[in-house]
Amino acid sequence: MDTSARIDGERLLKRLDEFAAIGATPAGGVNRQALSVEDRAARARLAALAQERGFAVFQDPMANLFIRRPGVSDDLPPFLIGSHLDSQPMGGRFDGALGTLSAFEVLETLEDAGIRTPMAVEVVAWTNEEGSQYSPGCMGSMAFASGAIPGEWQAARSPDGKVLGEELTATLDALPRAIQRPLGGAVSGYLEVHIEQGPTLERENIPIGIVHAIQGTRWLEVVVTGQTAHAGTTQLSFRRDPLVAVTDALQDLYNTVMPNDERARLTIGRISVEPASINAIPGKVSFSVDLRHPDAAELARLENHVRAICETKASALGCEATIRRTFDMPPAQFSPSLLQAVEQAASRLAVPFRPMLSGAFHDALFLARVTDAAMIFVPCRDGLSHNEAEFVEPEHCVLGAQVLLHSTLAALAAYR
Amino acid sequence: MDTSARIDGERLLKRLDEFAAIGATPAGGVNRQALSVEDRAARARLAALAQERGFAVFQDPMANLFIRRPGVSDDLPPFLIGSHLDSQPMGGRFDGALGTLSAFEVLETLEDAGIRTPMAVEVVAWTNEEGSQYSPGCMGSMAFASGAIPGEWQAARSPDGKVLGEELTATLDALPRAIQRPLGGAVSGYLEVHIEQGPTLERENIPIGIVHAIQGTRWLEVVVTGQTAHAGTTQLSFRRDPLVAVTDALQDLYNTVMPNDERARLTIGRISVEPASINAIPGKVSFSVDLRHPDAAELARLENHVRAICETKASALGCEATIRRTFDMPPAQFSPSLLQAVEQAASRLAVPFRPMLSGAFHDALFLARVTDAAMIFVPCRDGLSHNEAEFVEPEHCVLGAQVLLHSTLAALAAYR
Repeated sequence: MDTSARIDGERLLKRLDEFAAIGATPAGGVNRQALSVEDRAARARLAALAQERGFAVFQDPMANLFIRRPGVSDDLPPFLIGSHLDSQPMGGRFDGALGTLSAFEVLETLEDAGIRTPMAVEVVAWTNEEGSQYSPGCMGSMAFASGAIPGEWQAARSPDGKVLGEELTATLDALPRAIQRPLGGAVSGYLEVHIEQGPTLERENIPIGIVHAIQGTRWLEVVVTGQTAHAGTTQLSFRRDPLVAVTDALQDLYNTVMPNDERARLTIGRISVEPASINAIPGKVSFSVDLRHPDAAELARLENHVRAICETKASALGCEATIRRTFDMPPAQFSPSLLQAVEQAASRLAVPFRPMLSGAFHDALFLARVTDAAMIFVPCRDGLSHNEAEFVEPEHCVLGAQVLLHSTLAALAAYR
Repeated sequence: MDTSARIDGERLLKRLDEFAAIGATPAGGVNRQALSVEDRAARARLAALAQERGFAVFQDPMANLFIRRPGVSDDLPPFLIGSHLDSQPMGGRFDGALGTLSAFEVLETLEDAGIRTPMAVEVVAWTNEEGSQYSPGCMGSMAFASGAIPGEWQAARSPDGKVLGEELTATLDALPRAIQRPLGGAVSGYLEVHIEQGPTLERENIPIGIVHAIQGTRWLEVVVTGQTAHAGTTQLSFRRDPLVAVTDALQDLYNTVMPNDERARLTIGRISVEPASINAIPGKVSFSVDLRHPDAAELARLENHVRAICETKASALGCEATIRRTFDMPPAQFSPSLLQAVEQAASRLAVPFRPMLSGAFHDALFLARVTDAAMIFVPCRDGLSHNEAEFVEPEHCVLGAQVLLHSTLAALAAYR
């Protein structure tokens, strides 16, 4: 394998700065929410850069943006590399932008070096990965993978009342020179660089994570009801305090789920009580459970475990637990052949790497349903993401793009 | 002791119904919040009943309402009996009203029977016991006991923006025939009938509780800070989840405070997390602690215990606890001589009784700071109060007033 091709690190870093200025926040972050004026500006800038290099620009009805460098033959479907350009409302400058601009850097490097590829390579920027304006997130990749835009999305409203269908049309209209193409279609493979959004790589001082799977996620909403009563007048034997039951259940879950299985994740992100009066025993406690596991059977077992503990602890105190599943995302496995290509690239570049699970969702999760897909993670400072302080060392940005270039070349080599 | 005098049970029950109609809620409760139009209507009705009987009506600058039946001599300060007429927003028909109307029934019975008392007996309805519109509660009795209205109360605002000073003036003006008197002044003693607001008397099938003390109360606000992070990407060893620390601390407190001391009360009435996102490890957990104990030294020890547990459990997980005391009400002991008078009355009436602690505050707590005071409790169904379903058996209403009459006579006998 020839590893002489080199991405232009300075050009990539300059582009990252340039895009970070689009929707920049005073604290150094980015507010470039999906389909906003800022998002359109970023898309227009990327399209202009593409046109300067003579690459064709396409957009599909979901406003997913594609930049195409032709291959030797059009008989084979394109190989996609990319990520997203939208951000959280107080987001960082790397989440999404790093993967999209690294992919564009790869495209320019291929062009600069005159490397011919067996099929077209396309950079893609997926629409609305974050879901902060219109729910759910990953709309662009989800619609691409399914080949359809769910009808109800058109009427989805942002917190300030904007209607998705209208903003989608305005976003498409803002790039009149882009060529319209239908949603979906055959793809030869998909690779995405992303920041880890967790602390593992930084703490282990490893610059590259090769993501072999995305954990499955289930969300539960647990409500435990007891009997509200006066804090001062009610003796212990007369209390049916649901918070005592919930405390007992959570203690048990915290002690049994993650300590017994390093692949499991259990998070209680929300808890609230009613009537929420200082001097009243709560009558009702509600909390959310975020459960994750890369193994589907184990995830199902964990859900049953949570249900059993909550029900047992509640009934032991004369309370009642009702448990509702509000979200269920099965685990996704990435393509072994593509993972092998990434490992091969990292090894030949002599870049330290480790296999990883992704705990967060990504557009790659949906691409994995229709093609070979894999992801490359780079470290971020203190594991911080969805935060204006999000930061990736310049050398890790460059290394991620370099590994993406050679992973792409290694993957394409199979078609030669 | 002559126990031949009998209150008029039917008259009392009719009055309870009549007052329950003032601010009645569809579910059978009462919404008659302090200084509201409904509160003024109840005060006006009581004043009209008093005037029909020829009793003088007074109000002080805090709108505490007094109905006076003169005694043999005006050299001795009046003996007060009463409670309050205001209610919680979704309150019951007995909390406050029972004590006030029982006291008025006693005054009418004394008049009907032509019983001469050594000093005046006055029925009092204290202003804003509940504190649901303007904080703190027990404003009327607190100001009466201290002899002053704290300056900041005048500007206190209700949840819908009413200003206490203005509503106080309007309430006073609504009873133009009442005689103004200064705040405070000497009192010979104070007796108050109230519903228990707890389940003890009903469960033990005892109709009268003789309240010898009110528990001390301390409120703490505990904030435990950790590090918010992504629920999916953050391994156990990288988590500093303040909710895990709080769960551990609460479990410890629930297991050590009340089970080890039947006089202690520990209630966590409020708990909240930030950022309260399903898929984010909380960065901060806040909760309230309501601690009660009849013994001041033990209450102080409990506060130290709570502080130590919270700090230890937080720091064990790399989190930090900050603890602030927001309220401190020392325990109050009622008057031994007055308690003896109540016991004597109950014994001679052959009514079963038990000594009790009050877990809730009452106006009597503040009166106990300036005079001999005691309380008489009657059972309420299922311990429910501050609830539209609050209910007291008619026979217990009548018995409470009967014990109040003879307790008052027994107390006054000391002055003969």
